[in-house]
Amino acid sequence: MAENRIFNFNAGPAVLPLPVLEEIQASFLNFKGSGMSITEVSHRSVWFDDVINDAVARTKRLLGLDDKFHVLFLQGGASMQFAMVPMNFLPEGKSADYVNTGTWSTKAIKEAKILKKAHRVAATSEDRNFAYIPKNIPFDKDAVYVHLTSNNTIKGTQWAEFPDTGGVPIVADMSSDIMSRPLDVEKFGVIYAGAQKNIGPAGVCMVIVRDDMLKTIPDNLPSMLNYKTFTESNSMYNTPPCFSIYTIQLVMKWLEETVGGLAAMEKINQEKAGLLYDFMDSTDFYNATADKDSRSLMNVTFRLPSEDLEKLLIKEATAAGMGGLKGHRSVGGCRASIYNAMPVEGVQTLVDFMKAFEKKNG
Amino acid sequence: MAENRIFNFNAGPAVLPLPVLEEIQASFLNFKGSGMSITEVSHRSVWFDDVINDAVARTKRLLGLDDKFHVLFLQGGASMQFAMVPMNFLPEGKSADYVNTGTWSTKAIKEAKILKKAHRVAATSEDRNFAYIPKNIPFDKDAVYVHLTSNNTIKGTQWAEFPDTGGVPIVADMSSDIMSRPLDVEKFGVIYAGAQKNIGPAGVCMVIVRDDMLKTIPDNLPSMLNYKTFTESNSMYNTPPCFSIYTIQLVMKWLEETVGGLAAMEKINQEKAGLLYDFMDSTDFYNATADKDSRSLMNVTFRLPSEDLEKLLIKEATAAGMGGLKGHRSVGGCRASIYNAMPVEGVQTLVDFMKAFEKKNG
Repeated sequence: MAENRIFNFNAGPAVLPLPVLEEIQASFLNFKGSGMSITEVSHRSVWFDDVINDAVARTKRLLGLDDKFHVLFLQGGASMQFAMVPMNFLPEGKSADYVNTGTWSTKAIKEAKILKKAHRVAATSEDRNFAYIPKNIPFDKDAVYVHLTSNNTIKGTQWAEFPDTGGVPIVADMSSDIMSRPLDVEKFGVIYAGAQKNIGPAGVCMVIVRDDMLKTIPDNLPSMLNYKTFTESNSMYNTPPCFSIYTIQLVMKWLEETVGGLAAMEKINQEKAGLLYDFMDSTDFYNATADKDSRSLMNVTFRLPSEDLEKLLIKEATAAGMGGLKGHRSVGGCRASIYNAMPVEGVQTLVDFMKAFEKKNG
Repeated sequence: MAENRIFNFNAGPAVLPLPVLEEIQASFLNFKGSGMSITEVSHRSVWFDDVINDAVARTKRLLGLDDKFHVLFLQGGASMQFAMVPMNFLPEGKSADYVNTGTWSTKAIKEAKILKKAHRVAATSEDRNFAYIPKNIPFDKDAVYVHLTSNNTIKGTQWAEFPDTGGVPIVADMSSDIMSRPLDVEKFGVIYAGAQKNIGPAGVCMVIVRDDMLKTIPDNLPSMLNYKTFTESNSMYNTPPCFSIYTIQLVMKWLEETVGGLAAMEKINQEKAGLLYDFMDSTDFYNATADKDSRSLMNVTFRLPSEDLEKLLIKEATAAGMGGLKGHRSVGGCRASIYNAMPVEGVQTLVDFMKAFEKKNG
């Protein structure tokens, strides 16, 4: 690869599209003739206005969002959203439903608990170490929202379809699969996503809020913890994370103009995940950890016959230019994160390597 | 200048040292032989550990901080600190003192008010549109902290010396003058600074917390709003803003190795501000807006005989390669922000331009 780049299978921060990185690099000392780096340009300038407005417009086109949706860029990652969501949308006397599908859902529930907000765990897959996405969930029709994690980076599971909540708006943490496929946006009241997996570098969280959700926000929230502060200022109440937003803009441009939109992106993602899962299903040496119908197209988690073999695979893969294959420290094993920016070629290289590794060690 | 770069007098985001930008650019596709961009490297990797640990170590050396101080990198800018400070450090039954020296102090006070935290404005310079820093302030000896803004970007004032608070720890917003001069750190309980003026790009806030301040933090705060979450995780409870922290690391390296530390930096800053103020004091055409003993070395605010002349100066300066000279929209006039990274040559070029402008229009 160019510049001795590796195939980066890290779960996040993760691989970005090479043309995006090249464009940032080329303009880094002089952004669009401003005579300044994008890191030096005022957020109150025409240069940055163009960046953020284009990032919002492309996001809306890609996801098919109409004007009842606000697209915001906040700081603090998904972890800050775990607290902001109940602070803003869960008023006294009401309750919210949470679906627990792994580490990140558990953290979201923990913050609702810290805030002493009434909530209910409507379903959990903890009984089998979160290896599946729950089905036929008995949602509370009076809940103000249903919170779920669309893709579970650590457990390697993903909602193939979003559940019927009987009209209760879904609040979804889509940090690890946003923009990986088209969405039926009408089901969602809020979508949030730390950028560092599928759409940009760390340091910014994309938040999509349906306008009617804003109605019940209490008046006594600190300015920086109130979504209205950002809907009323195009995310620029204070200085936003300009560089990260700029990178998102370029990734959205790449998705629209090079990939050809989210339906095309989904097809590529299905192809990539298919290469890995089909191969693993053809042998007993590799075992995907998630239930078949709950498998993630983004994070492929798998085990080998022994921990020693897993260590050896990770070591040899690293030497062969494939990084980040170690599973999360809380679960062990191996994990290949194959987000939007991972080329088919990278996954094919990995599958070829795994075949040869099995032949040698199986 | 290289690559047709301008002299950037913006108040923030602001100019960064050119060698820092060049180093980022050169390694942008392959950071330290990792085969990944700094924007793609895992925050749980040796590469990023080296970055954040070096940024902390250099910050401590530059400011002379011993081990009772924690150096953190948080998100949300100084505006988030306006809320986090009283949430963490202002317990029920106690009060804090605030000094109001302008727009940013006012905002900090507003957040304490929203949170219904007991506080007192110990002094304000609002009576003369914040053109000076108050003296002989009657501080409350029982206050848990004294909050002040060390440099006021909009009003062009700066604390030349920090006040005697009778042992009450100072909590200082140093967003616009951190690292511009040596500090007597023993006076401070907390120092925070949005990076985008003197130490890096937007998207990260440096927070320095003295260990004993952590004792009174309540247990019921959301994880992302509790400083202990970050002191216990080296700022990596969740994915930190990696790129912005990396840039801070390089700026700290530049300060230590190229500039030669904060005493040397202060001398250069005095020289730059001296060039501008001495020239303006020699003519009636330009009028610095701040009282002489309260003048900022970072943001030089000034007026011309008419608004039309101000507009003309800004326009002609822009055409001559000097950007960002417009005063903040709330006060008008002109402002030259001459942070650490602005070279003496840039200020001299501006002074020469202002002299010629006066000759033509005076």
